[in-house]
Amino acid sequence: MRTQVGIIGGGPSGLLLSQLLHLNGIETVVLERHSRDYVLGRVRAGVLEHGFADLVREAGVADRMDAEGLVHDGFDIAYNGERHRIDLKGLTGNTVIVYGQTELTKDLYEARDRMGGIVVHGAEDVAPHDVETDTPCLTYRRGGEVHRVDCDFIVGCDGFHGVSRQAIPADRLREYEKVYPMGWFGLLSETPPVSEELIYVNHERGFALCSMRSHTRSRYYVQCGADERIEQWSDDRFWTELVSRLPEDAASTIVTGPSLEKTVAPLRSYVAEPMRHGSLFLAGDAAHIVPPTGAKGLNSAGSDIFYLFQALLDHYRKDDDSGLDHYSERALARIWKAERFSWWMTRLLHHFPAEDDFDRRIQTTELDYLFSSHAAQVSLAENYVGLPY
Amino acid sequence: MRTQVGIIGGGPSGLLLSQLLHLNGIETVVLERHSRDYVLGRVRAGVLEHGFADLVREAGVADRMDAEGLVHDGFDIAYNGERHRIDLKGLTGNTVIVYGQTELTKDLYEARDRMGGIVVHGAEDVAPHDVETDTPCLTYRRGGEVHRVDCDFIVGCDGFHGVSRQAIPADRLREYEKVYPMGWFGLLSETPPVSEELIYVNHERGFALCSMRSHTRSRYYVQCGADERIEQWSDDRFWTELVSRLPEDAASTIVTGPSLEKTVAPLRSYVAEPMRHGSLFLAGDAAHIVPPTGAKGLNSAGSDIFYLFQALLDHYRKDDDSGLDHYSERALARIWKAERFSWWMTRLLHHFPAEDDFDRRIQTTELDYLFSSHAAQVSLAENYVGLPY
Repeated sequence: MRTQVGIIGGGPSGLLLSQLLHLNGIETVVLERHSRDYVLGRVRAGVLEHGFADLVREAGVADRMDAEGLVHDGFDIAYNGERHRIDLKGLTGNTVIVYGQTELTKDLYEARDRMGGIVVHGAEDVAPHDVETDTPCLTYRRGGEVHRVDCDFIVGCDGFHGVSRQAIPADRLREYEKVYPMGWFGLLSETPPVSEELIYVNHERGFALCSMRSHTRSRYYVQCGADERIEQWSDDRFWTELVSRLPEDAASTIVTGPSLEKTVAPLRSYVAEPMRHGSLFLAGDAAHIVPPTGAKGLNSAGSDIFYLFQALLDHYRKDDDSGLDHYSERALARIWKAERFSWWMTRLLHHFPAEDDFDRRIQTTELDYLFSSHAAQVSLAENYVGLPY
Repeated sequence: MRTQVGIIGGGPSGLLLSQLLHLNGIETVVLERHSRDYVLGRVRAGVLEHGFADLVREAGVADRMDAEGLVHDGFDIAYNGERHRIDLKGLTGNTVIVYGQTELTKDLYEARDRMGGIVVHGAEDVAPHDVETDTPCLTYRRGGEVHRVDCDFIVGCDGFHGVSRQAIPADRLREYEKVYPMGWFGLLSETPPVSEELIYVNHERGFALCSMRSHTRSRYYVQCGADERIEQWSDDRFWTELVSRLPEDAASTIVTGPSLEKTVAPLRSYVAEPMRHGSLFLAGDAAHIVPPTGAKGLNSAGSDIFYLFQALLDHYRKDDDSGLDHYSERALARIWKAERFSWWMTRLLHHFPAEDDFDRRIQTTELDYLFSSHAAQVSLAENYVGLPY
């Protein structure tokens, strides 16, 4: 098989790039190890930056997002028992859209189907080859046979554990990592959200987050130990812990119910540089991870896709390779800002067991300062809705 | 001897409070352990917040500050070899005044002399008594005799090592501290400053600061180890190290010369709570210390003096004790913000030996973000010129 852009990974990043390129007459093949059902079964957050939402619109897959997604003009931060609002729209003119990553992935699959896009599921042992030449290729195994896709470029959208990053020689790769001493325990329930907007909670017992998937489905999180297991948390234990961390008005009105799903996620920051090696380009989790505070995971993948899409357009339409040549630098400049913001918001809102009294007071002072300063609120808000591409 | 407000410490805080109260008909006695020459020999920084400068004007001691002080509309931050300006005036409408703390202290002594204010030098073994009653007193030894000052209130402006804070029972005092793994090595020289405005330098070899006392006298600093001694640094070594950290245009134009004075200062954050115990009130370094980055030391003392002055005025003029009752809380709210800012600016600009690559990239990303965001610059600038009292 021959294509122009071979994409490893059929999650939202790979599908979005495939869709954007296809709409512009550029051929792609997407190779995904898992089945479609498996991919759609992965639950992820879903707070979309306004710029990412625009990219989804450009890809022509925004109908359901715009119809069913919840536009949020702000969110709350609770500490010392009080709720303080960050008025995203008032502070920046922009908003975010709460729309599950799974829903977006579903929309992308349907769009790919409609356009006849090639998405190969069950592609095992995917491997990039000859990435240091202009004639790279991908091989994979399916149905007992080895297949080969010749292409101009390979894009690795195959996540943190994927093969793409490993195709960059170790002596060319620089890695940055921070592992946080905590995790997020999440519970999904068929209950109305306690608040129309998200509530981020800084509490001495640990961080909590009140989020939602829709007007009838809530997603709550509490900070837990880094190594805790799902079996350690009964529904009762979760709700009791959550309520103990909420401000009074939320604690007294929250509707609890049986869990549809429980998850434990570690908190990690990770960046690999560069994001290009020869004909291979990395995007999203393949190159970088953020802790979930501030919802920058999918949005950071989105900014990679934006830069890469523009660069590939310039290559094929204008024979201009400057976008490809500067992809790594441009993408990383924005990625590091998202890393900084996620690190800052994580530090602002969590209980860090090893911190001393001084550090804790600095944390609450940072919150006091934030809610006394318009400039500090604008700074938070402009990062939350998404810095310009 | 009997007075209304007994003040321990004849540095700028104690003198300023004494002057402000005296102008408003409230009697004070200032007790200072050292001689006037000793006090005036202590070299300190001198970047005054606009609000502090207003307080100096209210105290009627601003003539020389306003004539000889250098109004600075901004400062530079250099990193990656480039200088970036923080336009304080454009960002906040406010400015700072560079005027040595020693000069201000001299002006305050002269004003106290003119008004016949009582400042006792060489007061040894100063001790506050009965601070849990309405009739506290101070004792001190001078010329072989023990003297006693009865007063309504005692104000401790006697610095970090003074006796005032120790008069608060240990079980009532809560202390917060951070010791940074570095110091500032400073050199004063009779050379024209390399730049009209301050240059704060983030360099991989360590922080540096180009500052000044006047148009002909420069004050430079380089980050050094926490335990280094003055003898380890010849003038030559200092200038070579400084120049190696400066951006090219500054490195090539700096005028060096023999040192008039060299100093080593540790970097420490410290706060003691509460700042009131009975009839005893703490102000300035007696209750809190900041690392010098951002020049909040004297300015934080100034905000204490502002709140305390207002509170004492209300007590004596309006029989209203709410200011005294809320002094500790009000002063600390602003102090913690200055602590946060000093901690943040220290972290932003210094090389931390124990930090890993991720932390270092977060630091340079914070600088990249700062110079890409108006809001982030406003936030820095509003703290630097001084948050409102």
